Amino acid sequence: MVLVATRNPLNIGAAARAMSNFGFQDLRVVNPFDVAWREARSAVGAAPVLQCAREFGGVSEAVSDCTLVIGTTTGHNRELLQPLHSLPEAAGLIQGAMSSGRVALLFGSEKRGLSNEDLSHCHWLLRIPTREEHPSLNLGQAVAICLFAVANAATPRAGSYYPTKPESEDKAAARQLDLITSTLLDALRLSGYVKPRAGAVPEEKIRRLVRRLDLSAGDAETWLGMLRQVIWRMRQGE
Amino acid sequence: MVLVATRNPLNIGAAARAMSNFGFQDLRVVNPFDVAWREARSAVGAAPVLQCAREFGGVSEAVSDCTLVIGTTTGHNRELLQPLHSLPEAAGLIQGAMSSGRVALLFGSEKRGLSNEDLSHCHWLLRIPTREEHPSLNLGQAVAICLFAVANAATPRAGSYYPTKPESEDKAAARQLDLITSTLLDALRLSGYVKPRAGAVPEEKIRRLVRRLDLSAGDAETWLGMLRQVIWRMRQGE
Repeated sequence: MVLVATRNPLNIGAAARAMSNFGFQDLRVVNPFDVAWREARSAVGAAPVLQCAREFGGVSEAVSDCTLVIGTTTGHNRELLQPLHSLPEAAGLIQGAMSSGRVALLFGSEKRGLSNEDLSHCHWLLRIPTREEHPSLNLGQAVAICLFAVANAATPRAGSYYPTKPESEDKAAARQLDLITSTLLDALRLSGYVKPRAGAVPEEKIRRLVRRLDLSAGDAETWLGMLRQVIWRMRQGE
Repeated sequence: MVLVATRNPLNIGAAARAMSNFGFQDLRVVNPFDVAWREARSAVGAAPVLQCAREFGGVSEAVSDCTLVIGTTTGHNRELLQPLHSLPEAAGLIQGAMSSGRVALLFGSEKRGLSNEDLSHCHWLLRIPTREEHPSLNLGQAVAICLFAVANAATPRAGSYYPTKPESEDKAAARQLDLITSTLLDALRLSGYVKPRAGAVPEEKIRRLVRRLDLSAGDAETWLGMLRQVIWRMRQGE
């Protein structure tokens, strides 16, 4: 559970309480607005979750050890650049992924949700289906609904409808994907595909592109090796 | 949605917001602790729900027009005298009941939940499955989880994993099914499958059999045409 730029510490406490209710422990907080969030009274019965929570300066650092990163969104007022799953269907995917790696579920701030930069760290996005006219949920309620759904999802089993790679292959962790992203960007800049000083947009595009590859840990290493070789070759010609 | 003896008006507001998010309108409040509950700031975007809410002096009055009354409980510290359903299973039952009548979902106070007297008005009880050691949910979160679950209870939709017929196809009306039933009975009598003067039992069996086909209006016409042709052919041989 990763809460990004949360304004009201009561919502962090409410998230901690729901985590404790449904058996989730690992709370991570990115750039919270209120420094005293650990004292939130709303974490009734969930003091241990709040005390063990960790604070990070950015999404990248917060999810570096996760193999699946999911962003929550209302899906409104935004052009979506990643696959979007509805919670009832996403809950099963998340529960399945939890058996083979660490899953990060990101929630943005109360007013603005997650930024495009935040979302570019995600493999896919999740939406809680609501009435079209009133899609904005309270943060603490949204967290509770998601954790309830994941905790009670029908576990995908052998013969499920999700085409998956063999179970034995570990997924690449976010830190590997970050490394591939930055290395690929180096290669693209060297090649002239990405212009110098092009800003953050190509970087976000490449970040999403790499996440769509759904790489295994082994393949991630292979790709990294290939990219480095290409970069080395391009630099030879300089 | 019936909130009984709620202490914190912010929780009434949070319930109203979740109702608005998931498309529920009818909020009823029984003996709230704070008389100013209609002004709860937490009802973001849900002022209409709060303004239309009605206050009652007892559970009996609040649920008098409902055909199904359900009490929520953690199921702890209490001898349960009614059937208890877990939310994932209860959600489908509630959605089904909503199509034929008014359903009341009762939530008790933050500290004590519903009393045995409150529960005695209920047809059955509902529990949100939680970790055994921390079953006490925040009231606003519990309401949000229940409404999400009911709104998303397993109704097979297009794109779901349930094999369904195309959405555009209208279902056959009862009058079409009656026509198929009587035509099929004619055919079965002509063929000797149903004996003359066999009474009402075969007719009832065939009626149920035809309803289990779950025919579209178009397919019903096709079946009727086929049956008529078969009947015509059998009559040729007479």
